[in-house]
Amino acid sequence: MTYCLGIKINKGLLFMSDTRTNAGVDNISTFKKIFTFNYKEKVYITILASGNLATTQFLVNSLNDIFREKNKDKSKVFFQNLSLFDLVKKVGKELKKIIAQNAEIGQKADTSFHANLILGGQVKGEEPKLFLIYPQGNFIESSTDAPFFQIGETKYGKPILVRAYDPFLSFEETIKLMLLSFDSTLKANLSVGLPLDFQIYENNTFIQGPSGRFESGDQYLADVSSGWSHALKNAFKAMPNLTLEKR
Amino acid sequence: MTYCLGIKINKGLLFMSDTRTNAGVDNISTFKKIFTFNYKEKVYITILASGNLATTQFLVNSLNDIFREKNKDKSKVFFQNLSLFDLVKKVGKELKKIIAQNAEIGQKADTSFHANLILGGQVKGEEPKLFLIYPQGNFIESSTDAPFFQIGETKYGKPILVRAYDPFLSFEETIKLMLLSFDSTLKANLSVGLPLDFQIYENNTFIQGPSGRFESGDQYLADVSSGWSHALKNAFKAMPNLTLEKR
Repeated sequence: MTYCLGIKINKGLLFMSDTRTNAGVDNISTFKKIFTFNYKEKVYITILASGNLATTQFLVNSLNDIFREKNKDKSKVFFQNLSLFDLVKKVGKELKKIIAQNAEIGQKADTSFHANLILGGQVKGEEPKLFLIYPQGNFIESSTDAPFFQIGETKYGKPILVRAYDPFLSFEETIKLMLLSFDSTLKANLSVGLPLDFQIYENNTFIQGPSGRFESGDQYLADVSSGWSHALKNAFKAMPNLTLEKR
Repeated sequence: MTYCLGIKINKGLLFMSDTRTNAGVDNISTFKKIFTFNYKEKVYITILASGNLATTQFLVNSLNDIFREKNKDKSKVFFQNLSLFDLVKKVGKELKKIIAQNAEIGQKADTSFHANLILGGQVKGEEPKLFLIYPQGNFIESSTDAPFFQIGETKYGKPILVRAYDPFLSFEETIKLMLLSFDSTLKANLSVGLPLDFQIYENNTFIQGPSGRFESGDQYLADVSSGWSHALKNAFKAMPNLTLEKR
């Protein structure tokens, strides 16, 4: 499994992912699941990937080919008059193609080649946007009613997002919210594991903002986790109890 | 779907379930999923059921036949020297039998006939116990490390249980905790729906304790839900933010 989270606030986009990859519980590894591409000061996108690691790595390498400087001519053609919508369509199409290729050639495997992506970014002249891309290559965009996307193990970490999200949060507050969502998931699902990678995109910068990794010994992560348990217990105690006799 | 929760605290056992049954999103009904049986002052059990409604209703009717006074002789034989472990074995065996019968006779159906049960109770001379019974008829018992069982849509409501459970909670506090767990689930999964039924068993009483139903307009439920959102937001705001520059 995996847990990846992309959030859109008024100030920009935030991405966080765990780094655990597993093929059975006795074969786990740490892999980065967050990938950023930018082209000059015109295009910026970050992709979070869950699902089959071979599929997502293949996809990222394909995109790298296009984005990297070494391939100048190809990039130039690729990005000419490209909207973010066009770009997401291309990524979706590429994803679908890779899954189809893996599924049809060579040995049949029991595992699925599927992958889900969260893609957030901005193209010069447009607003920043956040998308969820399905293995079928189609996608949906976030809205004010659904300002975040989750992929992988999404359920444990959702309640806190629903309750505490606010578009006016600062980047620092949003990181805190994301860590709480991840902490609930880490506590419940072994196949989501530390370290956690995060990345911030500030609107209209077209470059990667602050980013980092929370390792297992991280002091802030530990403070958030224990502080939250403490705060929840206090809030729980402070709320009125049911009067059983009255019912 | 369904969400049922059984919790063991030092003072006794508590049970809560939603009441939604659905066959597709356009065919929903309200059904009780919490069933209590007691035999004189010797045996008390409550069963929570998730899964195929035909299976769980059949099971409950079978058990009713045994427990009800009208069947005195049968009951007497049934309960002679019966431990709770024996009783759970019988319920598991009955469940397995019903599932197997439905699966083999008549038309083949696409839906599964499976059901999961939470069974809690006490037999005179023993401690109260809480069990989770699988469709295969086998079962596990709760422990101090795992003092509650969930069936159905279990994920959204788990984080709060993990953080706030304490064996020294009062019945009223435990009901509050259960409502918070259900509230998180109701907010996220349409196939879990109000009203919510609850029931309390106090150790060594061998009769059903306080019970009731939270309907959609219930004031306490509304207070808990909005109060919790408020408390969470405050706790969230009060926690220290990450200093991005330092990383």
